Amino acid sequence: LRKKKIKPQDLVKQITQGNKTALSRSITLIESQQVKHQESVNAIIEGCLPFANQSLRIGITGVPGVGKSTFIEAFGNYLISLGKKVAVLAVDPSSSVSHGSILGDKTRMEELVKQENAFIRPTPSGDSLGGVAQKTRESIILCEAAGFDTILIETVGVGQSETMVHSMTDFFLLLKLAGAGDELQGIKRGIMEMADAIVINKADGENKKPAEQAKSEFRKALHLYPETESGWKPKVKLASALHQIGIEEIWNMISAYEKATKANDFFQHKRQEQNKFWLLQTINDRLKANFYQQPKIKTELKKQLKAIENNETTPFVAATYLLKIAKDL
Amino acid sequence: LRKKKIKPQDLVKQITQGNKTALSRSITLIESQQVKHQESVNAIIEGCLPFANQSLRIGITGVPGVGKSTFIEAFGNYLISLGKKVAVLAVDPSSSVSHGSILGDKTRMEELVKQENAFIRPTPSGDSLGGVAQKTRESIILCEAAGFDTILIETVGVGQSETMVHSMTDFFLLLKLAGAGDELQGIKRGIMEMADAIVINKADGENKKPAEQAKSEFRKALHLYPETESGWKPKVKLASALHQIGIEEIWNMISAYEKATKANDFFQHKRQEQNKFWLLQTINDRLKANFYQQPKIKTELKKQLKAIENNETTPFVAATYLLKIAKDL
Repeated sequence: LRKKKIKPQDLVKQITQGNKTALSRSITLIESQQVKHQESVNAIIEGCLPFANQSLRIGITGVPGVGKSTFIEAFGNYLISLGKKVAVLAVDPSSSVSHGSILGDKTRMEELVKQENAFIRPTPSGDSLGGVAQKTRESIILCEAAGFDTILIETVGVGQSETMVHSMTDFFLLLKLAGAGDELQGIKRGIMEMADAIVINKADGENKKPAEQAKSEFRKALHLYPETESGWKPKVKLASALHQIGIEEIWNMISAYEKATKANDFFQHKRQEQNKFWLLQTINDRLKANFYQQPKIKTELKKQLKAIENNETTPFVAATYLLKIAKDL
Repeated sequence: LRKKKIKPQDLVKQITQGNKTALSRSITLIESQQVKHQESVNAIIEGCLPFANQSLRIGITGVPGVGKSTFIEAFGNYLISLGKKVAVLAVDPSSSVSHGSILGDKTRMEELVKQENAFIRPTPSGDSLGGVAQKTRESIILCEAAGFDTILIETVGVGQSETMVHSMTDFFLLLKLAGAGDELQGIKRGIMEMADAIVINKADGENKKPAEQAKSEFRKALHLYPETESGWKPKVKLASALHQIGIEEIWNMISAYEKATKANDFFQHKRQEQNKFWLLQTINDRLKANFYQQPKIKTELKKQLKAIENNETTPFVAATYLLKIAKDL
């Protein structure tokens, strides 16, 4: 039996009534990337837009093993206990190959997944990080229209994805472990400077002392960084997500951030800048795709890269040549 | 009287003989951006390429007031005393408006400018950072062909220019002052993580103690960073360029870097990656310029940005609309 087809305006109505099934189904449409769905998708997003933008969007990153799922389980349940509605999304480019390495295993969030006021969605698949990020951005709008007031977006801190998530969230939280050096943790350079807070997880038992030590070191290191545009001084906190220690303090910190940046207008300013960033980013991605996906360009680019390796040409001569070919096609 | 026109092949010959007048004149052609010179420019670059690539390229960044010119004067003279030939170039986007805020005042390098084995060239003007960077990249090739074995490229650490310079140099050196916080020094976030070395300048007299203190703090901070791809651990050094203290040690450090990265093949690998980066960067810049410079797109982009501010559209819907317009033009 085929699923009954629902009109976009009916889906919008159900979403704004908080219907999670309608929300799920609409996100599936967003993710399908089928041309025949594009019109419906546009209508749904357009219908949801007036109800969106009222949430707090929190990015959470950290390498595999740092305890992201356990943290989100503890943090999400705490937020729900405060009366919040929590949506959990993910951006994981690796899973576009492996089809879901994060948030695929919902059993690690076994309490949260059962909550009426929680909505958990694994990372969409896609053939490019840009495509995955776009789907997630559009899903945020739908979740907000469905009344979810706190959006958690999970990512792994080892590639380009955390930059994408940083560009779609209001607060960016980096989970780390004490003891293990960054080289072991595989964190990419530059991520520390994007973080609004570093949370040292698993700060319990024998780990507590090294965690305190790490906290002090990171504090000193963050102190050396230039001031942020928001005026916010990045914080370092300890947590044990497993034992639900430190969760309330982290929420209080994020609330303080929200209050401060709404008071100095940075919050709204950042969202507008993010939207403009995504407009230009999308255009630039598509301009590049149109160019590099031409078969003739693919062949000639390889040759020019080879010539560069052999010092037979300069990047600028090669670029001019390739652009001329594209123009003549 | 008009200057006599010289054939490109004659300029190439003179450059490879170390003729600084020919070098200067050719760089002027590169910087002219006049279409009628393009053919000559290409011929000169092509002729110089087989003689290029044999130098060490060092990027030097730091905010105004940190003592960049004094440092380059001291460092350059020391290198010349070792028998080296030193070219000093600059990338300063602000000067494309003000026409040369760095390296404009050669009096701050009064010894170096008189040296037979030194070549100093102020930042080229240009209407975009990409354009300025391209001219500097091409000038490097000519300087190398003229026998300059050490290329110093100066920039200010307050914008995008240091990323450009980082992408055209083998070693990247960040000059800082003790005492003054980063917020006072205006250093952009992320630059510290690009540095192969931090040099705390003006470490003399009463400044010596705070400089020692700063050195220890930066060392600890750098220790928290992830390992670099080169395997090199970024160093922190003290210097007083004015009193020529620490200069030899800094050169020994850079030599050690060169030796280590040539031994593990990172040096050559990085240059190839840089060349590929510049090929793609140039293509992408021109694709964007072709799109955004269309008058119709300029008008419509403004409208769409306004609609985004008012939450009337999403970045993706707006992007699709603008790309459709461009296609229909």
